[in-house]
Amino acid sequence: MMDLKQEMQKRCNDIEKALENALPKQTEFPPVIFDAMRYSLLAGGKRLRPMLLLAACEAVGGRKEDAVDFACALEMIHTYSLIHDDLPAMDNDDYRRGRLTSHKVYGEAMAILAGDGLLHHAMETMAIACEKNPSAQTTGAMRAIAHGAGIFGMLTGQVVDVFFEGQPLAQETLDFIHLHKTAAMIRGALEAGAILGGADEKTVQTFALAGEKIGVAFQILDDILDVTATTEELGKPVHSDEKNQKTTYVTLYGIEKSREIAAGLSAEAVKIWKQQGEGCAFLLALTEYLTDRKF
Amino acid sequence: MMDLKQEMQKRCNDIEKALENALPKQTEFPPVIFDAMRYSLLAGGKRLRPMLLLAACEAVGGRKEDAVDFACALEMIHTYSLIHDDLPAMDNDDYRRGRLTSHKVYGEAMAILAGDGLLHHAMETMAIACEKNPSAQTTGAMRAIAHGAGIFGMLTGQVVDVFFEGQPLAQETLDFIHLHKTAAMIRGALEAGAILGGADEKTVQTFALAGEKIGVAFQILDDILDVTATTEELGKPVHSDEKNQKTTYVTLYGIEKSREIAAGLSAEAVKIWKQQGEGCAFLLALTEYLTDRKF
Repeated sequence: MMDLKQEMQKRCNDIEKALENALPKQTEFPPVIFDAMRYSLLAGGKRLRPMLLLAACEAVGGRKEDAVDFACALEMIHTYSLIHDDLPAMDNDDYRRGRLTSHKVYGEAMAILAGDGLLHHAMETMAIACEKNPSAQTTGAMRAIAHGAGIFGMLTGQVVDVFFEGQPLAQETLDFIHLHKTAAMIRGALEAGAILGGADEKTVQTFALAGEKIGVAFQILDDILDVTATTEELGKPVHSDEKNQKTTYVTLYGIEKSREIAAGLSAEAVKIWKQQGEGCAFLLALTEYLTDRKF
Repeated sequence: MMDLKQEMQKRCNDIEKALENALPKQTEFPPVIFDAMRYSLLAGGKRLRPMLLLAACEAVGGRKEDAVDFACALEMIHTYSLIHDDLPAMDNDDYRRGRLTSHKVYGEAMAILAGDGLLHHAMETMAIACEKNPSAQTTGAMRAIAHGAGIFGMLTGQVVDVFFEGQPLAQETLDFIHLHKTAAMIRGALEAGAILGGADEKTVQTFALAGEKIGVAFQILDDILDVTATTEELGKPVHSDEKNQKTTYVTLYGIEKSREIAAGLSAEAVKIWKQQGEGCAFLLALTEYLTDRKF
């Protein structure tokens, strides 16, 4: 049995190093935008999405080196989405990952542009990787990530979230938001990783499905932790859903039932990893950890 | 001698049709984001960038059909940049192309998301085109467009523009802004078109250089028209540079000298098209038109 925490830390360190090199240094002109992009991208965090992408690639027999550009791009897209979500016109949050949000440090205009810049640079990073090696794998991975992030994925989840702000949600709407805003990118991470590792179409779809289950379970856990954890544990304000009168799994079902639903989704993903065999040992351990975390 | 206006209108109509099909219809859920994206993308305009991309592809012997997805993506990126530039935190403009700007119609949050959505969908559209046909041409074109739009191109031009807002600019800074904010995307359009058409590396670089000259000349003309044209002619408020105390070519050199500089750049591009031969006849006529337009 591996020491999961230690293994996660090691992989997280590798991702931090790759991200550090994936953006231009702050000496470029004009410094402010590169500063702002680095401030948010290098603010720590679990690096869950790139970790899942790289693990999926290795699980199907691929090489991590072929996937690292795509993993970095995925984290850039995730970070851009956080910067824009935090904007005054959106959630108007002052803290993220234990530090001031981008617009509190750089102002609203630069925060919008820093977010845009990260999305641009994710696109450019993937395009360069594809041009270096134009193949079904590289272009397929780029498509999977773009799809998970885009107007049929994460972006639309955020739109619906903003659209219904302050209104009680039906369960179908909440499920739509969770599936799109959170799960689509995690699905995209596992799908892209499996594609880059050279998996066949059936395996790719199986990984994508596991990603969807993990993504929804992860978001339900987030809803629960907003009620049960402390600000120090999460690095962001708790009870924000209550403050914003948000419908969540907790308000619909209560904490215990929500835990059960998350555990059920997690079990479905775990079953997939067990069927896929030994190569998925890390993905299995990570799945159990992510869907049963305390913060 | 072709009838340029008629030829431009015909090509513009083709691009309109392609753009109309490039976005999901407004019946998708949630309708508001698809409405907002279509509102700005289908608001008319010269369609200069996609027109240049398609013309470059055909000029080197390529097929328009292989380039149309990239042309649409380019126009989506251009439109996203206009939506975000117009935001209250940026230029705070109420009108664009003769109609209310996105945030005046849909509110600030949805305008940010509509811009994001267009950038996402440009990335996804190009990724799908690359996956359908993974080649040096498709991936190279995507890289050229991503580079022209990104943190070494258009985005950084906008950052510097915002950064120095309200301050007088040195000529070097103004040149940096013009080269990045406007010319980089036009350069990217011609570069991507030539790549998609199968041109050799030397020809691609020549087309890119012509794009840079046209782009800067085009922006200088824009500065001039802001002083000499009417709101009705431009479809946006004139004298906005004066109102915002912006340094432009006109404030640095006056109208006549600015016209001379633009004409000189245009002549350099025209010389390139003449050297490239008959295939570039439309590009040549378009270049002369764009850098000597009255509005």
